[in-house]
This record gives sequence, structure tokens and C-alpha cells, in this order.
Amino acid sequence: MTITIDEMAAFCKKKGIVYPSAEIYGGLSGFYDYGPLGVELKRNLENELWKRFVRSRPDVVGIDGAIITNPAVWKASGHADCFGDILVECKKCKQRFRGDHLIEDTLKIRADGISKEEINKKVSENKIRCPNCKGELGEARQFNLMFETNVGPVGGNTAYLRPETAQLIFADFRLVQENARMKLPFGIAQVGKAFRNEISPRDFMFRCREFEQFEIEFFIHPKKADDCDIKSIEKLEINALLEGKKEQAKTTIKELVSKKVMSKWHAHWIAEFYKFFLDLGIKKENLRIRQHVKDELAHYAKACFDIEYKFPFGWKEIHGSADRQQFDLTQHSKFSTKDLSIFDEETKEKVIPCVIEPSQGIGRAMLAFLYDAYNDDKERGNIILKLNPKLSPTKIGIFPLVGNKPEIVEIAKKIFNELKNDISCQYDQSGSVGRRYARADEIGTPFCITVDFDSIDDKSVTIRDRNTTKQERVKIADLKKKITSLLI
Amino acid sequence: MTITIDEMAAFCKKKGIVYPSAEIYGGLSGFYDYGPLGVELKRNLENELWKRFVRSRPDVVGIDGAIITNPAVWKASGHADCFGDILVECKKCKQRFRGDHLIEDTLKIRADGISKEEINKKVSENKIRCPNCKGELGEARQFNLMFETNVGPVGGNTAYLRPETAQLIFADFRLVQENARMKLPFGIAQVGKAFRNEISPRDFMFRCREFEQFEIEFFIHPKKADDCDIKSIEKLEINALLEGKKEQAKTTIKELVSKKVMSKWHAHWIAEFYKFFLDLGIKKENLRIRQHVKDELAHYAKACFDIEYKFPFGWKEIHGSADRQQFDLTQHSKFSTKDLSIFDEETKEKVIPCVIEPSQGIGRAMLAFLYDAYNDDKERGNIILKLNPKLSPTKIGIFPLVGNKPEIVEIAKKIFNELKNDISCQYDQSGSVGRRYARADEIGTPFCITVDFDSIDDKSVTIRDRNTTKQERVKIADLKKKITSLLI
Repeated sequence: MTITIDEMAAFCKKKGIVYPSAEIYGGLSGFYDYGPLGVELKRNLENELWKRFVRSRPDVVGIDGAIITNPAVWKASGHADCFGDILVECKKCKQRFRGDHLIEDTLKIRADGISKEEINKKVSENKIRCPNCKGELGEARQFNLMFETNVGPVGGNTAYLRPETAQLIFADFRLVQENARMKLPFGIAQVGKAFRNEISPRDFMFRCREFEQFEIEFFIHPKKADDCDIKSIEKLEINALLEGKKEQAKTTIKELVSKKVMSKWHAHWIAEFYKFFLDLGIKKENLRIRQHVKDELAHYAKACFDIEYKFPFGWKEIHGSADRQQFDLTQHSKFSTKDLSIFDEETKEKVIPCVIEPSQGIGRAMLAFLYDAYNDDKERGNIILKLNPKLSPTKIGIFPLVGNKPEIVEIAKKIFNELKNDISCQYDQSGSVGRRYARADEIGTPFCITVDFDSIDDKSVTIRDRNTTKQERVKIADLKKKITSLLI
Repeated sequence: MTITIDEMAAFCKKKGIVYPSAEIYGGLSGFYDYGPLGVELKRNLENELWKRFVRSRPDVVGIDGAIITNPAVWKASGHADCFGDILVECKKCKQRFRGDHLIEDTLKIRADGISKEEINKKVSENKIRCPNCKGELGEARQFNLMFETNVGPVGGNTAYLRPETAQLIFADFRLVQENARMKLPFGIAQVGKAFRNEISPRDFMFRCREFEQFEIEFFIHPKKADDCDIKSIEKLEINALLEGKKEQAKTTIKELVSKKVMSKWHAHWIAEFYKFFLDLGIKKENLRIRQHVKDELAHYAKACFDIEYKFPFGWKEIHGSADRQQFDLTQHSKFSTKDLSIFDEETKEKVIPCVIEPSQGIGRAMLAFLYDAYNDDKERGNIILKLNPKLSPTKIGIFPLVGNKPEIVEIAKKIFNELKNDISCQYDQSGSVGRRYARADEIGTPFCITVDFDSIDDKSVTIRDRNTTKQERVKIADLKKKITSLLI
């Protein structure tokens, strides 16, 4: 049983995960605030990404670049001149539509990457009118998605809110390589906010104007894209929708590499993120990769794959992985007039590295994890959010059976105080224990500890498992060890 | 021996802590990027704050609000109408100056909160000319520090980049209170970016245009500001510069509370942050609180204190703590026409809570920690960054004594792989071990593990302590336990 995106939005609001920003003022289209549970879930997700792909890898370091930077960065990257969507405005009601969405929604065909001219042609051929008021539509025109602002007092200089985190990595490439003493191949990662002035934000957290990204730029000697040991991942089974195919099919990393669908380093990064989703609990039938068709590829990109999740509203991108070749560093080298080539000790030559770019939307990943974990359990009569404990906002619920027996409350509070510094706990003494279990299920808390009357004498408590409802009696003295083992 | 702010900036750039954003394009005044070490230091600092003041407190929950929100929020808060500095422009060279800084720098007097009229008077009385070109200065005028942007396609609606995180908390107050089922007194915390279009950014990370804040709004029944148990903090010794005093003096929380300098709940929060800095290693002689004088206080604020750090360029605010009374929720209630009062179960009445606001600048705290940890050790011949291990970007350096002995390299790599998932480690095999120790000292790594020739047979390694240089031989089998105990 699945729920619609609107039902998911309602669930997220009710539980304090995500809601429209400043909702008491009616919100603002495309902007969301994370509530008490959402902020913990997001932090857990970001920390897992950071731990796995930055801290535990000697070949990747992190940065945290500014949201507003020197606008020359966006000249070099191409964003200032051509980062946008095509806009069609109704002459009568003035409502604006994204050109490709207008064509898709009215003609029920795919319109990825459709040009201004094609849109105008389709509008006139099919006599498309405004979906809102049936008025006449204006000419399609280009619209830049970057938010502008002015830096400096009164009539300052135009600057932009970054539309992606990636470019800061290229702009800082030289300094980072030097001060972290990195040698090829190596990566630089960043997590943070990005902003796009979407014409029509939609699908809840799926297309926001303010969102979070985790991006890695992985730099490789241009002749060594296949110089990567894929032994540990080559047997990984992947659902793949490849270019030119109508249906997805099961394949392996080994097969994809041997058929030259992607380079070995590209395969490494796709596999690592695919595994990230699987390891944190996404069901494998809900995950696939989709190869971009030639038309979708930027002129400089060699290959691009999305990791897609099967949402109730269709397969949608939750991760992008692009083989960007030498484009970015070449551009920044040209525009900054700084030498961004790097000396490769092995081949004793200076090279402009090639780049593999895994790009992870945090909100989209969160939405996929939420959908995958969501179970409306008829038997139990409540929702169970079967989140992986690593992602759960609260790891342990701590419940005194009754709130009016001081000895019980005291034990429960003592347990809370002993665990709270290392493990995210929630102390809850309101309502029946059954009600408290249900509430814990609904926010994905994997384990609950109940302190009951027997606890006073037997110095033990009950641990209840969210997924199985099985209860186990554990000595309070052994509790921390037990909990730690359960959460690994 | 201290270093100037420019020397600190140079050190931070060299080591990959912080540098001008997109420096290859000349940077952008007031905007900084955090490098590989800076991002880890910042994450550690934020995580310590979050763990201490959110996760481990049952009375505080977090949110993460949008940077761009409904602009009505800034109407209600007052920022849209009067959040700014006074600007004086040179008629000749067009350079702009912050009015108070101009008066302070030219007349060498304090000018906090000086009005437009007073500035004009002082400029004309003292015949102040442009410090840059000696040209004639224009009239002083108000300048709003909020960055503006437009949301929505082509001529969209004006919106602002938040100049503080606090207001999002007030805007979400009702929803958070409901979905996290909070009862008075309770707090809502947030960490994130804020933006102010400073007229003259200066002092490195001290006055940036883009910066990070950790803010808590702590909501209290208006009649219960003293309903807080201060037993555990009342003996805390504090250096205080109180209103009307010329010199700071030692005092205690107990004394401050008994003299009614602050309410008990206000004292609680000031003490908790004061302790935070002490616990993480700031020397107590470098820390004080300063009470705001009446002129500095906003009309609605009852009291305001800064925690100040003794920088080489003087005592400067690194933390602000304001008793804001009912102002914020009353304003948002009025502007949103939503009832933001809350039912207090104890007194059975609906009340608009009062607010204590601890406001922590992340960059400023980082700068204080860096200054306090910085030691140019003449004996060792290198800098030692004596950071608390909790803040250190790297906890453990792992060094194979030589890089060309496979058995040694193998052991070192194995240790790295065993520790890396839980502890931030750095594997380093380049240069002499002495050079590697020095590099580790300079980035504040508290412990280094060296694998030497003996390790092959005795299955032991050497752990070297950054502060004492003392070395200890430890069995590899006991290493994880040992390291964990050292890092607590």
C-alpha cells in the first residue's frame, strides 16, 4: 500500500518532519522548514554520507564553500549565461509555466530538453491554451534559474545564490589540493544548500527552490579512468535502464564495465551510492540506474546516469552521476587565468584532471527513505516507519510504565541520562504504553525501553523491537552494551 | 605570544581551514570558504553544540528553517523596516563607511548605537573628511543589511535572505510545540547560515556577510523566569563587566542571580554556554561576560549579555544572550493573526511565553578556539594547535615509519581501516616521522600512532601525545580501547 505525495506531505507535517516554511504566513512556494524529527533525520543522513564518503576515505576531503561567491565563478561554469528553463506566460492571467512541463501535461508526451522553437511550434500546432484560464499563451522564452542579489551597500554588485555546490569545489581545487596534499586520483566533497528559482516548484520536497546537496568531484588522470580496482563491487546486482532500451534489466557492475557502458571509476562511484541506498534499507526492487540518452547529455559530458527510486508518482531521479571530463577545470583555468593542472607523480606529467561527479540531493534521498520505510500496519493499527536505525531521528524511547511512581520515574530518568550523550533518546511518560509504542513506531524509533514495577526489584527493563514487537528483558547494568550492539 | 588577525588569516589559509571564497577569482569581501580542516572543525563544533544543547536535553528540540522564507516574517520581526546600519558616503571617491566605525576610527571614542543626527553633528563639528581621499562626506543615512532577492519567474516577489536564524523558530513555534508535544518551559534550536550585507566586512571571520549561527529560543511562562534550579551552576566563577562598572570583576552565578542582574533562567543559559567554552578548552582568563548598557538594549529587551573573548584586537563578543520577553511571539501573533499563546498545565492559563535567546556565532567561536589553541612552540620549532580532541579535525595520525617496507605499511593500513569508521584518522606516510609529528601538531591532531620495525614482531605501536610529546607503547589488539579512552 502506497501513499500519494500529498498524503506524505500531510504525514510529514503532522509528525514534525517537514512543512511549508513559516506556515503561519501561508508558506512560500518551494521553501520548506524541517521540524524536530526532520532535522534529526537530515543530520543523520548527512552524517552517514560524510562518514562514508569523506571521513573514512583517505582519498576524499571535504570543504564548505560560501553560498554567495565571486560571480565570475558562474561566468566560468556557464550558469550565468545559460542555466535555465523555458518559460511560457499566459497573456491573459499572467500565470507562468515551465515549457517542457506545459507540453508534457497537455500533450502527454515526454519533452525533456525541448527547445524554445519546438515549444512555440507545438503550442501553435496543437492550439494549446493556458491550462489555468484558457487564455492565449505568449512566446516561449529563456529564464535563468539563479537567484540574484546585490552585495555591498546601495546599488552593490550583482551576485548569485549558488545553484549547486559543485562549482565551489572547482574554484577551490588548487588551494585544497595544495593544503591537503592530495595526489591523483582524489575527491573533494561538499554538503550544503543550493537555490534554484524554479518556475513551478512541485511534488513536495522533490522540486524545491531551496534544497540541500551532497556533491563529490572526483579527479582522475585523463588517461586513467579505468585505473580502479572494482573487485569488491563487480558482483553488485543493479537494475539498469540503458540507453536505447525500453525496459530495465538486471545487470552487474562487471557487465556494465566490460561492455564499456561506463568507465571503472564511474562504475565505482555509481556502485558506492547504489550500495549506500541498499545498506540503509531501500528495497532493491525500488532502485535502478537510468542512463541518459544522448540528447540529455551536456556537450562536454561523456556519460551520465541517474539512480532512480520508484515513487508512487513514477521512477524519479534521487542521485545523478556524471562523467564531466576536463570541462570544469578547463573553464575555470581559462576564466581565472590560473594554472589548474596538476603534476602526476606516476607519469611525471602535468595534466588537467577529468572529473566524475556524484551528486546527491538530500531532500530527495530523504523522501525515498521515508517512502521505503512507510508501512500502514492494519494489524497494529498504526503507521510503522521502518527506518534504518542509523537514520532514525530517535534511537531509543524510554518509558516509565507509570508517571506517578517515583522509583520507576527515577530509574527511567537515570537510564535517559546515562544514554543521552551518545545515543539520541526520547523520554516519554504520557499516555498508555501501547500509545507510546505506537507513537514511537510512527517516527521510526527502532527500540523502546520500558521501566515497570518489576524493574525496581529485578533491576531489569524490557526492550521492545519496532519491527517485530518482540520484547526482551535486559539487566539495567547490561543495557548500554545491549543497546550499542542493537544499533550497529 | 599572540598573532594578529592577519597572521591568523594567513595560517588558516595555509592549513586549509578558511580562505576567501573562490580565491582564484580574487574572492568576495565578507565571504569565506572552509577548507578540508575547517569544515571538519566546524562540523565538530556544531555537533558538540547540537549534542549538548539539543539531543541530550529533553526540553530542547531542533528545527532547520529555510534561508528564504515568506517575507511577512521580516515585517513582523521588524527587520524589513529597521534592521540596519548608518552609512556615510564620500561625495568624491564614493567610498562608503559605517557611521559608527567612522566616528570611532577618526575621533577614537566609542560610538555604539549612535544616531544619524549625532553622526552628522560630529562630522560637521569635527570637520571629518573622507579617510580615503579627504573628500567631503555626504549626509548619514539608514541602510538595511538584509540581502534582497526575487522569488518566482521574471519580476517575482521581493524576498530576503534571513539575517538571523531566530525568526524561523518563532514562525514555526506553534507547529513545533504541537508536533513535538512540548510543555513550558522548552526550547527550540537551530543551526545554519545567515546573511548580512555588512557595509565594511572586517576582522577576517569576525564580521562576514555570510556566517553561521546556532540559536536557541527558550520559552518560559512569563511569571516563571526564576523557576529554574541553578544548584549545579551557582558556584560557577565568571568574569563579569557589569553595567556602570569600568572594570571587570570575578563573580558567581549565585551572586548575579541574588543581585537580580539576571533571571535564573537567563543565568542558566549564560552559565551553560560559558561552561561550554571552558569545557572545550578556552582559558578562563580569556573569557568574560559583558552586560549591555541601557542604550544598547532594544526597547523590548529586559537584559542582554555578551560572552566575550580576549582577542589580540580586544575583548569581542563571541556569544549573545538576550532576555527578549514576549516581544517576538506577540509580534508574530499580531502579523499572522494566529494565536501563539500556549496553555500552561500547571497554572491552567493561556500565556504568550517569554523568551531567553542564546545566540552563538559559529565562525566567531571557531576563531576564539583557534586563538586559544594556537602556540608557536620555539622549543619544538613548530606551531602546536592545542585544540580539545573533540574539536580536532583529525583525532589520530597513522604513520608507517617507512613507506617502502610492505609489512609496516600493511599494519598501518589495517589500523586505519579498523579505526576510520568511528574516529577521524589521517594516514600519512610522506616525509620523516618528525616532520609528520610537526604537521600533526600544526593541525591540532591530539595523538599519532607510529608503526615501526618492531611492530612486525611485538604487535605493538607507539602512541605519541601532541601536548606532552610523551610516547607510549601499546599492543595493537588494545589500540581501539586505548584510543577511545584517550579521546573521551
